[in-house]
Amino acid sequence: MNAYAYPLLIKQLLKMPMAQASRREIVYRGDQRFTYPQFVERVQRLGGVLAAFGAGIGSRIAVMDWDSHRYLEAYFAIPMSGAVLMTVNIRLRPEQIAYTIHHSGAEILLIHSDFLPLLAKVREMLPTVRVVVLLSDEPDPQIPEGFAGEYEALIVGATLHQFPDFDENTEATTFYTTGTTGMPKGVVFTHRQVVLHTLGIMSTLAMAGLNAKFSREDVYMPLTPMFHVHAWGIPYAATMMGMQQVYVGRFVPETVLRLLATERVTVSHCVPAIMHMILSAPAAQNLDLSGWHVIIGGSALSRSLCEAALSRGIDIFSAYGMSETCPLITLTQLRGDLLDAAPDRREMEIGLRLSAGMPAALVDLRIVDEHMRDVPRDGKSVGEVVVRAPYLTPYYVGDTSASDALWRGGWMHTGDIGAVDENGYLRIIDRVKDVIKSGGEWISSMDVEGIIMTHPSVLEVAVVGGTDERWGERPVAFVVIKPGAVPDEQEIRAKVRARSETDQISRHAVPDRIIFVDALEKTSVGKVDKRALRARIAGVRRE
Amino acid sequence: MNAYAYPLLIKQLLKMPMAQASRREIVYRGDQRFTYPQFVERVQRLGGVLAAFGAGIGSRIAVMDWDSHRYLEAYFAIPMSGAVLMTVNIRLRPEQIAYTIHHSGAEILLIHSDFLPLLAKVREMLPTVRVVVLLSDEPDPQIPEGFAGEYEALIVGATLHQFPDFDENTEATTFYTTGTTGMPKGVVFTHRQVVLHTLGIMSTLAMAGLNAKFSREDVYMPLTPMFHVHAWGIPYAATMMGMQQVYVGRFVPETVLRLLATERVTVSHCVPAIMHMILSAPAAQNLDLSGWHVIIGGSALSRSLCEAALSRGIDIFSAYGMSETCPLITLTQLRGDLLDAAPDRREMEIGLRLSAGMPAALVDLRIVDEHMRDVPRDGKSVGEVVVRAPYLTPYYVGDTSASDALWRGGWMHTGDIGAVDENGYLRIIDRVKDVIKSGGEWISSMDVEGIIMTHPSVLEVAVVGGTDERWGERPVAFVVIKPGAVPDEQEIRAKVRARSETDQISRHAVPDRIIFVDALEKTSVGKVDKRALRARIAGVRRE
Repeated sequence: MNAYAYPLLIKQLLKMPMAQASRREIVYRGDQRFTYPQFVERVQRLGGVLAAFGAGIGSRIAVMDWDSHRYLEAYFAIPMSGAVLMTVNIRLRPEQIAYTIHHSGAEILLIHSDFLPLLAKVREMLPTVRVVVLLSDEPDPQIPEGFAGEYEALIVGATLHQFPDFDENTEATTFYTTGTTGMPKGVVFTHRQVVLHTLGIMSTLAMAGLNAKFSREDVYMPLTPMFHVHAWGIPYAATMMGMQQVYVGRFVPETVLRLLATERVTVSHCVPAIMHMILSAPAAQNLDLSGWHVIIGGSALSRSLCEAALSRGIDIFSAYGMSETCPLITLTQLRGDLLDAAPDRREMEIGLRLSAGMPAALVDLRIVDEHMRDVPRDGKSVGEVVVRAPYLTPYYVGDTSASDALWRGGWMHTGDIGAVDENGYLRIIDRVKDVIKSGGEWISSMDVEGIIMTHPSVLEVAVVGGTDERWGERPVAFVVIKPGAVPDEQEIRAKVRARSETDQISRHAVPDRIIFVDALEKTSVGKVDKRALRARIAGVRRE
Repeated sequence: MNAYAYPLLIKQLLKMPMAQASRREIVYRGDQRFTYPQFVERVQRLGGVLAAFGAGIGSRIAVMDWDSHRYLEAYFAIPMSGAVLMTVNIRLRPEQIAYTIHHSGAEILLIHSDFLPLLAKVREMLPTVRVVVLLSDEPDPQIPEGFAGEYEALIVGATLHQFPDFDENTEATTFYTTGTTGMPKGVVFTHRQVVLHTLGIMSTLAMAGLNAKFSREDVYMPLTPMFHVHAWGIPYAATMMGMQQVYVGRFVPETVLRLLATERVTVSHCVPAIMHMILSAPAAQNLDLSGWHVIIGGSALSRSLCEAALSRGIDIFSAYGMSETCPLITLTQLRGDLLDAAPDRREMEIGLRLSAGMPAALVDLRIVDEHMRDVPRDGKSVGEVVVRAPYLTPYYVGDTSASDALWRGGWMHTGDIGAVDENGYLRIIDRVKDVIKSGGEWISSMDVEGIIMTHPSVLEVAVVGGTDERWGERPVAFVVIKPGAVPDEQEIRAKVRARSETDQISRHAVPDRIIFVDALEKTSVGKVDKRALRARIAGVRRE
């Protein structure tokens, strides 16, 4: 049999831009521009550089860079060489960064000059790293002692690498996810998985009729870091489509706003805080943002942010996923069959945009109770979100018990509590570990937080469950008051009670205790550390 | 390890419409309508029917039907059961039909009442067929003796089948392709291949920016038979998208035109003859066809047909593929980067629409000479089109030597001569066996035919190579003159010569001989039988 078996390999995602010799460009900060043929050549040269350093099947190669054309080149060249791309979370604490690089077994490290002081602190904790390459935005950078060279110079001097075929189940990427407990955990994705994730994104986008319509004519600028779950996988899809792409480098709001305008960006994705920053920046007030499609993920899109963006003509909508899921699980698309049938079309539209959306192509999503039984798809019944897709991490690296827990019953447990309505739209209610079980009901800490946030004096809030003999748990709210405002426990409680009286939340949701604090404990990635908050009140638990 | 392996199975294409409970419908001839939940339930019931008949992994189940909701149900339920869907080419001669059904080893046959007279003729040639099910459009049809029952009644009485998981390399579909020589040859496609083909179609469509934009809001009506290469694979994609779908039943032009209007169809695909029929039908003159997207395949889209369709507001464009390729190889998408740079935007647009298009997602396409060396991508250098994709038939069933020839050198040989331009657009020049090699040049018989067809007296033409001692081969034209017209050899030759003088075709292309005939020999599928024409002139060859 002579038939070619066609393993699913990341190199095939480049077939399309190569065949089409697109005149579109990969743009770095507006300064540097590469056509697709140039980009593909640079990927081949980076392959040559890596081969010269002895990288091969299974070698781990770590990258520490801001969002850049170099990072995009690494997204392709490293796995195409058979090596594994390790995207370093540069927001972790130095010792965590060192831990993750060492745990991954990285042999080669590509590092931006901005992180050299950090590297100096932890270099001796990285005995497996035998080659370090400098990434620099300067024309003629000084190469630190012990470094193998500078990226641009190495690229220029390299041969064009011929990337080999190999098994599609070869590992392609790895990175680390942080919980509130223990050290970061490594996830891995194979070539087959990255290719299927890319096809899944594209197939999902193909369906878009009324919003979320991207095409080869769009201009893409990610506003999430590229170390974060393959920048949600969109750079692979954008490259396959031959889109014009813009990378912002180190995240500076002025740069982002300038590039948005000068590069005529039409497609982005970010967390809510970034969108909020952009909308409220003085420099953005006269910017025409209409026709900009923005996927919101990372945390829930609030109604106020959604409406503010819509009023600027932005097509804003939600997606849902996590490090373990490559990440696309759900994405919001508006549907004519629903809007046409809705009594209030605009209200329906906003409701859909705020939901986490519908399962993406090939994603099998269930909401289950503790016994893995499906709960009704009525938009009200809640349970844990469990999923199957052809691109979920098969395990946490070197952590059998966490892997077993992740995949118990053959379904990947997201650790999120959600509800799916009769049209298939998912709403995330809370984290499993944060939901408050009170009087036989599950109360979403996020819902209560959302209501308390509407109080004009409240700057930040976190609600956790305090142990209670009679109710099991009772909500406790930690509140940070805006400077100059006066804390008023009764008023805040009244806000929640008012909502419970209109049936929008359980009457059990009204917090017994409201604790005013100067600040909320945060984790290394900036999320509220509810574990620490629970520890604060543990002393008064009736345990 | 508990992680779910997620084999790529056709049943996963239904996850999306199931999750979304789309209110869109599957419509049969305008009479019968099924929502997606109803459709999915019918697929499960058909699975129950098949299981009751003992179908399992590897069972062959043949279908003879017009385009229908039933056929769509069979597209899913048969392979989802682990059985292999065999789509019978009902346009073959009866003995060829019997040959293909028998050769496939079909155990079960689903057959429309229109084909019962045909079945009566060949029933004894089908010893492997142990169960026959009647498909009927009548409310209470009479069931012929020996039949296992009628489809609707069986569906109603069946249990909901739970489709199992199995290896993604399990065969899913099979059908037969006819050449001009020998008996039809069987091709096969696995679950993995059908799923990747569907994702490939969707991923390709996702890129569409200026034309060929389909979405979940579209209304799909195929105008190619569903036995023909999975109706080009679009029903799988349309179902995954949850599109409104319309199936026309037996092809009657009036029905097609009526459904086009009443169902507000926005997406179709057909051969040029069907588009020509629709545009020239009196009933279509007052029909608003604007916004209708139509993919043309099967044979080349002519400039006149393209312009006629464009003038009606139809988004008409080409695609290329064949039975062996599942079939999508190339599809035409307009590109802003090319149109914006073109001196004549409209001329560029028409040129792109007439080309076979660019390679679809994951398709690797080369134009090679006899030694498998790539020819330049300049739009002029010609060679054989060879391809790789994750969904090409791995072999012809039971024909090792034909399979080896198909895949020689690890690339699938299309048997087509083509050229690719610097932007990646493919133009098909001719079939390898029809191209005329004269004086060291390759002359496209199709090009010469196209020029001769512009003569107002010509009804039909076929050009073949006649052996010539000096030139190797020389073009010979067989011409059928319109009723009442007068044959004029000199005028026809002058047409070709005029084009050769403006460099649009080689001067060797002017036919030495023009033979006027009453009719051209055709194959069983209605294509001109050039082998027979060559045999006609063999007697006068200087051999």
